[in-house]
Amino acid sequence: MPGTFLTFEGGEGAGKTTVIEAIAAWLKASGYEVVTTREPGGIQIAEKIRSVILDPSHTSMEERTEALLYAAARRQHLVEKVTPALEAGRIVLCDRFIDSSLAYQGYARGIGIEEIWNLNAFAIGDRMPELTFLLDIDPHIGLQRIYQNNEREINRLDMEKLDFHEKVREGYRKLATRFPERIVVVDASQDVEGVLQTIQHVIKTRMNLKSS
Amino acid sequence: MPGTFLTFEGGEGAGKTTVIEAIAAWLKASGYEVVTTREPGGIQIAEKIRSVILDPSHTSMEERTEALLYAAARRQHLVEKVTPALEAGRIVLCDRFIDSSLAYQGYARGIGIEEIWNLNAFAIGDRMPELTFLLDIDPHIGLQRIYQNNEREINRLDMEKLDFHEKVREGYRKLATRFPERIVVVDASQDVEGVLQTIQHVIKTRMNLKSS
Repeated sequence: MPGTFLTFEGGEGAGKTTVIEAIAAWLKASGYEVVTTREPGGIQIAEKIRSVILDPSHTSMEERTEALLYAAARRQHLVEKVTPALEAGRIVLCDRFIDSSLAYQGYARGIGIEEIWNLNAFAIGDRMPELTFLLDIDPHIGLQRIYQNNEREINRLDMEKLDFHEKVREGYRKLATRFPERIVVVDASQDVEGVLQTIQHVIKTRMNLKSS
Repeated sequence: MPGTFLTFEGGEGAGKTTVIEAIAAWLKASGYEVVTTREPGGIQIAEKIRSVILDPSHTSMEERTEALLYAAARRQHLVEKVTPALEAGRIVLCDRFIDSSLAYQGYARGIGIEEIWNLNAFAIGDRMPELTFLLDIDPHIGLQRIYQNNEREINRLDMEKLDFHEKVREGYRKLATRFPERIVVVDASQDVEGVLQTIQHVIKTRMNLKSS
């Protein structure tokens, strides 16, 4: 059995982590072998690349350098972790993949979706996800969720960031209209049960998995 | 005055270092402001990227990951060092640039010249060198020069590597026929005086520099 590659996308506070854990548990309960991961996913080389990206002393890092480094980490994570799992027939649930780069760097940062697409095509070849779940949420609500969990109020700086997150959301939505077969937009403002039911329904009907 | 970007390419033992130093001295003697550099060129972020590439524990590094990392280091070196020098009107002499990736990774490693071209186009934009000097030499002779300097004989392992270096040379020559206006092939098997005379002549006639 060939593996199945599912990715989960969305802005902050959309609930990706919770949703991925629940979907993984549901699939495992149905007898599937599941791998959950996120870049850099514990891959040594990818972790090293990530540490270069996140090093706070690297204030001069140019946005295209950053995009190339993300693509490099993605390539290594794909080759070392995702592809072997898929070849072993597993279902791989990945927290963020190419669409994050397209929405954040291509659209919101303004490098251009086409340019980031071509760059990532070099990195991932034809290994596109079978399905991508876009957990769509108003950034206001998403950020509020995060702050409620951390028990603090939204401040002025957060408000400035909101503009950026609005653009990310806009970018994601553009991608969803461009890849309607692959990207499933899920209303992430509903409660988690509703989100899970929607995703489970899509997986059952689209992936021809045996129902749980 | 806008700057001038000149790059030097060629396999091992072609004599790039010696030639660049001599051309820099000649240009400086003619009153030009000259910057000599090579990737990663002391740029902190590029050095960090290079250390990820060269880390001997990274035996699992995949060839496309490597190509992406080289492109990232190139981008940062370009933005932080080459472009500012050019904008200040300097002549920049750079030891290796895009053609190294095209010849080594695109052609000799087999990723494909087109693919590496597109990747590097993302990294460098339209900042192509005005002229590129390809110091062309039979790898046998090039390697022999290196070993003479280090006082050792070519061994069996070196011979195996020769195949690879033959392919690199072949790749470079293909690039020279593809970009005949930009890439000047210089016979690097002649003595260094001959090489320098050829390059000086081309720079004087093609770059409209005042003669020294």
